[in-house]
Amino acid sequence: MKNMNFILYVAVLGATIAVCKTGNPCCSFPCQNGGVCLTQGYDNYICDCTGTEFDGHHCETPTFMKKIQLWLKPSSETLNGILTNYPWFWAVVNYFPSLSNFVMKKVITIRSAMVDSPPTYTSDHPYITWEAAANLSYFTRSLPPVPLDCPTPLGVWGKKMLPDAQVIVNKLLRREKFIPDPRGSNALFAFFAQHFTHQFFKTDFKRGPGFQWGGHGVDVSHIYGKDKGVENVLRSFRNGKLQVQEINGEDWPPFLEDANVPMTYPPSVPKQSQFALGHSSFGLLPGLFMYATIWAREHNRVCDVLKNEHPEWDDEQLFQTTKLIIIGETIKIVIEDYVQHLSNYNFQLTFKPELLFDTPHQYQNRIAVEFNHLYHWHPLMPESFNISGTVYTLKEFLFRPDIVVKHGMNNFVEGMNKQRAGRMSHHNHHLLTLNVAKETIEHGRQLRFQSLNQYRKRFGLPPIKSFLELTGDETLAKDLEELYGDIDGLEFYVGLLMEKLRPKSIFGSSIIEIGGPFSVKGLMSNPICSPKYWKPSTFGGETGFNIIKTASLKKLLCLNMKGECPSVSFRVPDFVEGDVEAEVRNCCQNDRSSNDSYNRKTDL
Amino acid sequence: MKNMNFILYVAVLGATIAVCKTGNPCCSFPCQNGGVCLTQGYDNYICDCTGTEFDGHHCETPTFMKKIQLWLKPSSETLNGILTNYPWFWAVVNYFPSLSNFVMKKVITIRSAMVDSPPTYTSDHPYITWEAAANLSYFTRSLPPVPLDCPTPLGVWGKKMLPDAQVIVNKLLRREKFIPDPRGSNALFAFFAQHFTHQFFKTDFKRGPGFQWGGHGVDVSHIYGKDKGVENVLRSFRNGKLQVQEINGEDWPPFLEDANVPMTYPPSVPKQSQFALGHSSFGLLPGLFMYATIWAREHNRVCDVLKNEHPEWDDEQLFQTTKLIIIGETIKIVIEDYVQHLSNYNFQLTFKPELLFDTPHQYQNRIAVEFNHLYHWHPLMPESFNISGTVYTLKEFLFRPDIVVKHGMNNFVEGMNKQRAGRMSHHNHHLLTLNVAKETIEHGRQLRFQSLNQYRKRFGLPPIKSFLELTGDETLAKDLEELYGDIDGLEFYVGLLMEKLRPKSIFGSSIIEIGGPFSVKGLMSNPICSPKYWKPSTFGGETGFNIIKTASLKKLLCLNMKGECPSVSFRVPDFVEGDVEAEVRNCCQNDRSSNDSYNRKTDL
Repeated sequence: MKNMNFILYVAVLGATIAVCKTGNPCCSFPCQNGGVCLTQGYDNYICDCTGTEFDGHHCETPTFMKKIQLWLKPSSETLNGILTNYPWFWAVVNYFPSLSNFVMKKVITIRSAMVDSPPTYTSDHPYITWEAAANLSYFTRSLPPVPLDCPTPLGVWGKKMLPDAQVIVNKLLRREKFIPDPRGSNALFAFFAQHFTHQFFKTDFKRGPGFQWGGHGVDVSHIYGKDKGVENVLRSFRNGKLQVQEINGEDWPPFLEDANVPMTYPPSVPKQSQFALGHSSFGLLPGLFMYATIWAREHNRVCDVLKNEHPEWDDEQLFQTTKLIIIGETIKIVIEDYVQHLSNYNFQLTFKPELLFDTPHQYQNRIAVEFNHLYHWHPLMPESFNISGTVYTLKEFLFRPDIVVKHGMNNFVEGMNKQRAGRMSHHNHHLLTLNVAKETIEHGRQLRFQSLNQYRKRFGLPPIKSFLELTGDETLAKDLEELYGDIDGLEFYVGLLMEKLRPKSIFGSSIIEIGGPFSVKGLMSNPICSPKYWKPSTFGGETGFNIIKTASLKKLLCLNMKGECPSVSFRVPDFVEGDVEAEVRNCCQNDRSSNDSYNRKTDL
Repeated sequence: MKNMNFILYVAVLGATIAVCKTGNPCCSFPCQNGGVCLTQGYDNYICDCTGTEFDGHHCETPTFMKKIQLWLKPSSETLNGILTNYPWFWAVVNYFPSLSNFVMKKVITIRSAMVDSPPTYTSDHPYITWEAAANLSYFTRSLPPVPLDCPTPLGVWGKKMLPDAQVIVNKLLRREKFIPDPRGSNALFAFFAQHFTHQFFKTDFKRGPGFQWGGHGVDVSHIYGKDKGVENVLRSFRNGKLQVQEINGEDWPPFLEDANVPMTYPPSVPKQSQFALGHSSFGLLPGLFMYATIWAREHNRVCDVLKNEHPEWDDEQLFQTTKLIIIGETIKIVIEDYVQHLSNYNFQLTFKPELLFDTPHQYQNRIAVEFNHLYHWHPLMPESFNISGTVYTLKEFLFRPDIVVKHGMNNFVEGMNKQRAGRMSHHNHHLLTLNVAKETIEHGRQLRFQSLNQYRKRFGLPPIKSFLELTGDETLAKDLEELYGDIDGLEFYVGLLMEKLRPKSIFGSSIIEIGGPFSVKGLMSNPICSPKYWKPSTFGGETGFNIIKTASLKKLLCLNMKGECPSVSFRVPDFVEGDVEAEVRNCCQNDRSSNDSYNRKTDL
């Protein structure tokens, strides 16, 4: 309740300030708990509390039922603590499907209820429009932009001018010494994140940072191409398969000169390093090329399985059905391997679409631009990569898909598996990724993002009261205090990067609690999860359905490499949680051979 | 149960035939009750009964719960009889909101559960694909196309060659004498249907009859244009309003030369008859131009109301919010005036989105090509129109929007209100619309539509056993028997037009029970009906919200005409149900002055 009073105090104070300045009275975001602020003339407003389960002028008073619910509900930190501790308790839950299903259903429904579906806002309108629902060119917004006529860029809080993005980058983001991820995440994890998410994070920079050119979800367009035109070029039109070529006894994607799809290689890249991939930017890093190749091989492997089951099927049916299986495998692996690793829960996450069939869950998704910003995880990038004894710096990795071919898939995967990823926090951006960070901050301003604290409230977290509470680090808190002046005036992306990590987690609470809903919603709202799709016949029968139901990172990699499969996981082998500070002090990785900045205009 | 045995017999027989001919064993559609047929090699199949509540080799055995449900469920004819009779009973239900809400919720959930959402099939794939879910260029399909390798065009039934479409048109569709609609529907109704539905029935003939260029629902693109480019040309950018011009003291849409949007006028149309409208084809008929004008006036009227409430709003917010209100008004009027008229229910339909908030209702829609075909209601078109004493034949109406301007809105509306529409059945196509009917039949074949009986089963109706049962007319039944040979070999659209009307209805049972679900689903899945949209603030506050909640056909017309409002309704004034045959015998309207066929390639 103390928090609530605090919020109210801030809100009323904000409203007062706003009125005094005769700005838009909604600039102080006076409506709490999801209430919508509606101006009434120039200096008045009302809060529309419909559907919020709160009443009162500012939607601040819970209904009786809501009061009980709030009273019973554990805090987000408590919940996370329960989920990441008590292994004996979770072993029991994981063992009994009825218990496990109950928890999993709760995880999904609570998370995805946080996301408005159909989507409500665009970056161009601080009010609901038909554009928000119908115009797929927009990224959606989970909070509307700060109105243009507000006293400060964040509404009524903070300074009139935000600090220079370059200063923030130099002072708070630049890596001095590589800080490893304290949970032992590896480069296999980092590249999986990058490869997976770029199927739906596709900013249309030509139109502006609020626009995108993708399909708003897990559409495997990073494997099959952005449209039917690209897909048709990548297909072999034989037995449902994608085109591949054999080099050194292994299957690889075709060269660009053999399959003309849009790819962005600099002219300096030789033709035998230019491969044709589903995503135009995936020639950028060998880690992306590795996953692109693995998925192409997996597609062709599944085609063989289906062809064996269905000799009567033509190329088209084999292709289309395999594509549906690949989508299913992707979601299964993302939930049960990737999100499992991210969350560090002792509760074992499961992919069971049928849990949602009796709920008002919406099988549609729209990518939010806040989710895109939040997913800028460039600190994960290490300084260098050791593949079979050869060390490549990050710079040496750029536009070198041929590195994977040269060392062979097994050796490359083994190298990525052993390579520790960086900690996702301040002072850990590689020099080559600093420009992306700067651009992200600038885009956040152009898009008039609300403050970190507004986003925390939107996603059920208490607002943070001080920079020290945010960072847990006095020096950092002092720097932020100087730059921003007011914790309520702290911008979204910078705030995310400055936050101290949650115990046992690779992120701070904001990234987890804001990113989680977008992630769960995006995965479980895929059409293949809906009742008419989620059945054996959709996937060619029980055999195909089982490929999805038993998919894992390990199988994905091991079934698509020759010879003995190296140890594969999203964590470096034999990892034991320890003293990260000591690790940093002793760490050998300080390769900063390059000072060239990474100037490509790209979303990567 | 007799029906079920019959179905099974047919299915097994079908399967046998199919196997004998070594065709695709799914050609006989052996899986019942929504089961999915999956080939297993060249001459075997299995039925996937997942989610159907039926078991057995052909999904023919209901589960225990389903058996009880089926036993309790009244037939579709019984239900329709209850809803269209017992006015005293329905007066009571209509009076008590709790009863009325209960019935309305049932009507919506039962109807919309019939429609797969997300959509499952395209016209190019007789199996589920990602294309069906993701490729918006396709119309969806509620039943997959007949596989290409089947013995007959409709699977295993009927003749190997379907009868010549021109023969069907000449023999069964051509109007000899105008047959009026037996329920008294008028031209105001016919043009409303045409105007409303062409916002979402937009066949992309260049790509083929299975493709479309629209937005898949009530997106008011027929008022504001197909995209932002057109919308921007039609907007005035002042106070949220659309461009209008004053002629004879009334507001009309701008001339095409003043607002350059894509319109399809033949070169013979003079410039002062070429108006710029939201839909490129709406210059075709004065009735469409009338509604286009009325909605433009309504938009500007609502802008004034909002501007009065919100002097602080800019043009953009006034425009966007008004557009949302116009969508809401459209749905309200369609449900409470238009569908109410169509259904002829004594139960009063109500537009209350909140009834669905606790259900698994999906707020997304995809237009099915079968819905498009079913909605080809050209028999509604009368022979001529009397406006203030001047009689125009249908031919004289073509590309003459200026007729509305000349007579004035009031006189034109009065004329349409008094003009009886035609009966939606056989032998009632105006000469000018025969080509559209022929094309529709041909497209149905190209799209490999399943038979009428397959569609009846898909939408919960018993299959029809004979041509006589279908038509209730011996001569017609004989003609059909000769043409098609087998009732199970009767194609979709022809079947719809041949069916006898339901008692008290303007259609046969197939159009009602197949069209109803598409209609209800399309209306109630609009984003504005979803919980985050359906609240006062979305529509500028209570005033705007109330414009939607109190909208009606009468208000729409009367608030946007000058002077005294004529009687307006979807039924001719003072209509009393009577002997239609006698009406036809005595009917004065037999104007067949023109023999020119209507050759324009259009969807209208």
